[in-house]
Amino acid sequence: MKIIVLKFGGTSVGTTDRIKKVAKIIAKYKKKYNVIVLSSAMSGVTNNLINLSKKISKNFSDSEYDVLVSSGEQMSCALISGELINKGFNARSWMSWQIPINTEGKYKFSRINKINKNQIVNYLKKGGIPIITGFQGINNKNRITTIGRGGTDASAIMFAKFFNAEKCIIYTDVDGVYSTDPNKLKTAKKIKVISYEEMLEMASLGAKVMQPHSIQDARLNRVDIEVRSSFTDNEGTLITKRKNIINNKIITGISNTMNDAKVTLLGVRDKPGIAASIFKPLSENFINVDMVVQNISANGKETDLTFTIKSDDLSKTKRIILQNKKINFRDLIFDKNVSKVSIIGVGMVTTPGVTYRMFQSLARQKINIQVISTSEIKISVLIDKKNVRKAISSLHKEFQLNK
Amino acid sequence: MKIIVLKFGGTSVGTTDRIKKVAKIIAKYKKKYNVIVLSSAMSGVTNNLINLSKKISKNFSDSEYDVLVSSGEQMSCALISGELINKGFNARSWMSWQIPINTEGKYKFSRINKINKNQIVNYLKKGGIPIITGFQGINNKNRITTIGRGGTDASAIMFAKFFNAEKCIIYTDVDGVYSTDPNKLKTAKKIKVISYEEMLEMASLGAKVMQPHSIQDARLNRVDIEVRSSFTDNEGTLITKRKNIINNKIITGISNTMNDAKVTLLGVRDKPGIAASIFKPLSENFINVDMVVQNISANGKETDLTFTIKSDDLSKTKRIILQNKKINFRDLIFDKNVSKVSIIGVGMVTTPGVTYRMFQSLARQKINIQVISTSEIKISVLIDKKNVRKAISSLHKEFQLNK
Repeated sequence: MKIIVLKFGGTSVGTTDRIKKVAKIIAKYKKKYNVIVLSSAMSGVTNNLINLSKKISKNFSDSEYDVLVSSGEQMSCALISGELINKGFNARSWMSWQIPINTEGKYKFSRINKINKNQIVNYLKKGGIPIITGFQGINNKNRITTIGRGGTDASAIMFAKFFNAEKCIIYTDVDGVYSTDPNKLKTAKKIKVISYEEMLEMASLGAKVMQPHSIQDARLNRVDIEVRSSFTDNEGTLITKRKNIINNKIITGISNTMNDAKVTLLGVRDKPGIAASIFKPLSENFINVDMVVQNISANGKETDLTFTIKSDDLSKTKRIILQNKKINFRDLIFDKNVSKVSIIGVGMVTTPGVTYRMFQSLARQKINIQVISTSEIKISVLIDKKNVRKAISSLHKEFQLNK
Repeated sequence: MKIIVLKFGGTSVGTTDRIKKVAKIIAKYKKKYNVIVLSSAMSGVTNNLINLSKKISKNFSDSEYDVLVSSGEQMSCALISGELINKGFNARSWMSWQIPINTEGKYKFSRINKINKNQIVNYLKKGGIPIITGFQGINNKNRITTIGRGGTDASAIMFAKFFNAEKCIIYTDVDGVYSTDPNKLKTAKKIKVISYEEMLEMASLGAKVMQPHSIQDARLNRVDIEVRSSFTDNEGTLITKRKNIINNKIITGISNTMNDAKVTLLGVRDKPGIAASIFKPLSENFINVDMVVQNISANGKETDLTFTIKSDDLSKTKRIILQNKKINFRDLIFDKNVSKVSIIGVGMVTTPGVTYRMFQSLARQKINIQVISTSEIKISVLIDKKNVRKAISSLHKEFQLNK
């Protein structure tokens, strides 16, 4: 019998009623599969625990933080198992130290490096349904570690990898990945199949379905993921290898950001290495520079440099640039009223004219493009925030995503 | 350096402010001792977890119940350790599976049978303060077990035993054991030293400081216990061996019950084995009969039988007696307006006239004694509930407990 891994997020197990629904979902899969379940803490629980640690100290011990917050999954797994047992199933909770799930790296940011399969394999053979604490493991000192927030996705993907599962199904509170944000465009369509690479671009650009590093884990380990909702019976979105996708669309989705800021240095003395002089101190302060454009200097002496950062980093960026004695410039301009709109699709690699069609579509709407950046499967443009909905709508129609 | 075991109950760690106070208490002992700490869950947490299990099912799985509720101590131990680390101490939380603490018996009602000392001994040698989850352990299947409510006292006593600790200090929200309930009598005095046996009588008769089975554990393992409050700096009550006590009082304390009921069968046909016929079905239904008195039958044919039970068992008892076809009686009378008042003291063994003084003191207050029972260190009388305060006050004065 094939193995399937089911992961339930915090909202999916947020109340005892939700947990009863989750048990029904598990029971359904049990008819066809050997089921391995990974669960997050009930929604709110982890945040409450974190708040307690903050009340003790802003510099609460990392190792004790992991002991503290990992208790949330112990609760939810016991409750799910209890409900399944109540319904007559052979189920039990498995703590990470009982399996064990081994991790390496620092507390709060560990990574799973080994899952000892023996006990779980035996338990599955006996028809058992293991309900396993996500988001955690133990290190080589036999101490509890956590693998960062949203880490239960990563736990589930590692179980799918180690147990060679047919699929890893991520149950959450959204019913899949959409061609664009349904809150911004009513005609947004759910994507049936998407490649890891496209999903990575979608995720890092604003689709909040899964953390990018979990998608990256899935990609590296070749684990097929289905993202779906535990609140509906609708089919979700399958995230898989490119070659599994027979996709007749050039573009898979459109995403946008709302928390970018544009920084422009006017009249920068143009000499070799000037860009490095500007960006090095930003990098050292963990400020991520995204899009960059440098105008060609007319006289060979001065140039204008524009780049984007997260809005949160704006005041820090301003201070660093003004304190930077290695650079000269005439003026410094900031703009928070910008948004990066991106079209994403593996299809664009083999289709010429995509860039042109994107620009033409925006031009027709009289939307000015401020900065452009491209990758193999993505084209991003920075535009005025007020034009975001218009841009998305126009691009959605241009690339026939509503069909 | 000698070892001391500190136990903190739920109210002592009920908030992060209380946990900071607990850390200060621990720090104080650390100057003189190797300190081992056992903690309960924050007050309210265990009840919340139990309520969640009840929402899932009234017959929630025992093994998963233990997984669920034991998460509370994981939380509190992480928070205490975090605070101590923050204050510069070498502290860490120890889960029962990390030590491990081995238990035997059923889920929910296990008993600690072994504590593996090695790791804790090494940790103490390095100056560490272990903060250990109370109320739980692991069984021979490597699964989490709990040892019943109030079980952290039992955990602490077992650590004191296995580590040969000088003392086990139980921090709670009352500051010791009193000569009688201070809510009933303002002149009640805190008892400085009390024997296990007296404390057992005090506990089972209504003093809610410690569970009787924990005191019994301490007695069997010859562990000295100090009960004191984490809310004040007042000295507490030492519970120890009889021979450690140089006590010039005949009576140590007075306790009373408020949930007893008196049952009287009038005109019972007096034949051999009649008492057994009455009490056997009660015992089979787990109804605990406490005081018993049988009048001498005048004519040798009929007698009146009176006994006490817990009020909660009253309707059940009534049903069982009425359905009992082996017995004949004229009438059945119930009285819930009774209370058992007891004087307790190891001193009474060697002091004649205690019973007389007790009866005389009550007689002076015109308090009628309905039933009497005695043990080596206790005399109990059943009286009308309305006379309880008067009786306690009179006996307190008679045996000079307010001095």
